[in-house]
Amino acid sequence: MNKNQFVPQIPYGTRDLLLREAKQKRIVEGSLAELFSRWGYDEVVTPTFEYIETLTVGTGSDMHQHVFKFFDKNNRILVLKPDMTTPIARVAATRLKEAQLPLRLFYLTNVFRHEQAQAGRQCEFYQAGVELLGAPGPVADAEVVALAVETMLESGLANFQISLGQVDFINGLMGESGLTPQCQQQVKSAMVSRDLVGLGEILAQSGLSRAAQELLQQIPLLHGQEDMLNKAYRLVSNELSRKALDNLADIRRLLAGYGVDRYVNFDLGIIRDFDYYTGMVIEGYTPGLGFPLCGGGRYDNMLASFGVANPATGFALGIERVLLAMERQGISVSVRGKEVYIAWADGQLSLAIEAANKCRKEGRRAKLALVPESRTTAENQVVEQGYEELIYIE
Amino acid sequence: MNKNQFVPQIPYGTRDLLLREAKQKRIVEGSLAELFSRWGYDEVVTPTFEYIETLTVGTGSDMHQHVFKFFDKNNRILVLKPDMTTPIARVAATRLKEAQLPLRLFYLTNVFRHEQAQAGRQCEFYQAGVELLGAPGPVADAEVVALAVETMLESGLANFQISLGQVDFINGLMGESGLTPQCQQQVKSAMVSRDLVGLGEILAQSGLSRAAQELLQQIPLLHGQEDMLNKAYRLVSNELSRKALDNLADIRRLLAGYGVDRYVNFDLGIIRDFDYYTGMVIEGYTPGLGFPLCGGGRYDNMLASFGVANPATGFALGIERVLLAMERQGISVSVRGKEVYIAWADGQLSLAIEAANKCRKEGRRAKLALVPESRTTAENQVVEQGYEELIYIE
Repeated sequence: MNKNQFVPQIPYGTRDLLLREAKQKRIVEGSLAELFSRWGYDEVVTPTFEYIETLTVGTGSDMHQHVFKFFDKNNRILVLKPDMTTPIARVAATRLKEAQLPLRLFYLTNVFRHEQAQAGRQCEFYQAGVELLGAPGPVADAEVVALAVETMLESGLANFQISLGQVDFINGLMGESGLTPQCQQQVKSAMVSRDLVGLGEILAQSGLSRAAQELLQQIPLLHGQEDMLNKAYRLVSNELSRKALDNLADIRRLLAGYGVDRYVNFDLGIIRDFDYYTGMVIEGYTPGLGFPLCGGGRYDNMLASFGVANPATGFALGIERVLLAMERQGISVSVRGKEVYIAWADGQLSLAIEAANKCRKEGRRAKLALVPESRTTAENQVVEQGYEELIYIE
Repeated sequence: MNKNQFVPQIPYGTRDLLLREAKQKRIVEGSLAELFSRWGYDEVVTPTFEYIETLTVGTGSDMHQHVFKFFDKNNRILVLKPDMTTPIARVAATRLKEAQLPLRLFYLTNVFRHEQAQAGRQCEFYQAGVELLGAPGPVADAEVVALAVETMLESGLANFQISLGQVDFINGLMGESGLTPQCQQQVKSAMVSRDLVGLGEILAQSGLSRAAQELLQQIPLLHGQEDMLNKAYRLVSNELSRKALDNLADIRRLLAGYGVDRYVNFDLGIIRDFDYYTGMVIEGYTPGLGFPLCGGGRYDNMLASFGVANPATGFALGIERVLLAMERQGISVSVRGKEVYIAWADGQLSLAIEAANKCRKEGRRAKLALVPESRTTAENQVVEQGYEELIYIE
């Protein structure tokens, strides 16, 4: 390799954030950290990687094909964390075992997945999220949904919806259907990818009655406001599905108390792509973005795998997706502070340094010229670089 | 493996930061980001990993044994970034090629090295740093050193020193000595690890004159204020070493202008453990901590390897080391906000939610009880958890 001809590349599926993008990320993350803190949540920072056993216990081995794996010096397998739910479960199982419940935790971190990179999907991306551990029931779920709404608002988004589903609604219908577990899994996969044609084909070959097929095909279409819930009640007779609808109605009632119900609707077709959800599931959408801004839900069984059986609920938000949505909706984060350019004639550097010190003490952003310049050159710099002010020392 | 008996472990050489530690990290990083911005630096966020070729071109293959390596789906080798200097060189070589110089960049990130974990050394750790690209000479170096001092002060440290060295002082002596390149490398290694006994043994077998041996053995002892520089002038006669001393004297003069010279001394024995430094090198120390808080220097050749020949200077700071130093010096970051506990009697949840909304809108931190409680239970919670205030809705 000829060193002089080396053209460095950025790894596949990753990005550099520069200037405006990096600044927007810092501003959004800073304001989310403050929001989460006002709601009583404390930050958790975990390592970038975990032992693979931790991930397997947390999210199952289906995840393995999507993670970056490598070895430590003792030949144990490490994985770059694909989400924060499992690391937080590990922390809860070890260092926070004695802590008083409920535990409210938040994080702002990067996570990693082997993906075909495309709009909104990268191999490394940035997440904000909360986990509320040790609290069952709709009160905790409503807190998490209300906080998800506030998270969107805090980011500057106005035009968005949080959709609520409930995995037991589908689980009840599946149990009722008498489908084989394998066929149930195929049906769920088609629903996750919103593949209505594929779903129809699977059902056509399922041996189910026409009525049962039609019922299952309707699930992805069950979205709307409270009237849709009423419609769904009439469609199902099994107890599990009906209890799921009761649960959603309870959560909705509490959300009205938070004053955020206008940002919330129902979508009974939501099946998140992790198997660990056990109750309410949520996804957040904004017009013009073909993928969710945030997602999450209740996962009451995962902590038991770590030896600390406890209910849990939470959500995560894609920072880059929020920044992309803001850009598309023309919402700007003010990132440019006042900027002073301090230039100096030959021999006047010490006075220029003094001026820079003074500006910075006043909290202003000051760039000091590193070579002497004529006043004309300095004035040209101010125009070209868009500085707000010139201090010229001569 | 019995799932119920699974005890998750944290990967070797890594840590979770919880509660106070996570909060301190966020506060220190936030204030450093503001400081760097006031000095005209812009943040850069790069991926967690790079192709190994980028690292090799940047820092040489000596680094390979210290990095975590793995494969992407196309069987290209990726490494977890061991520092930010190389990624920033890659960014400068690609996306910032057309930018106007000098470029002032800062970062706050985690970096990774295979290490024997010990106090102050982890396999994953957090760095803050700046790079000033495209500016040669002492004016740029002085800006970076002055900013290193301000970085320490901004973190809350008062008792620290930044030591300046210059690699050409040693390079000049090496050239003068006539030692074989292999022996020069041994001498440098002994100096990096401050191994005076080992240095003596290497020199004893070097075939150098007694006087030359004594001169080289004195290098690690050459630290102090300006009078030490004068002493060093008298020790050397080669031009390279003398120019190195001139350079340090120039930087020192500028630092007086910044008003930070009392935090700065000289240490001609500083040899940083990367080969890429070409001029001034710096290390920051604080009493009671056996490793540097920060380090850096001038590296004028690295960018040329990336096809954008340009001088460069910068430094990086270990966030955890700063937090450790603050703890040992009894300097506290105020991390606890006022915290309100909002509890409610059966049936009063909606009023409690309203109260929580109100507190949070006022910017207060409010924790909402998730189950109804008696006033006595709530009062006990306030005492046990140390809440500042109770709002009880009945």
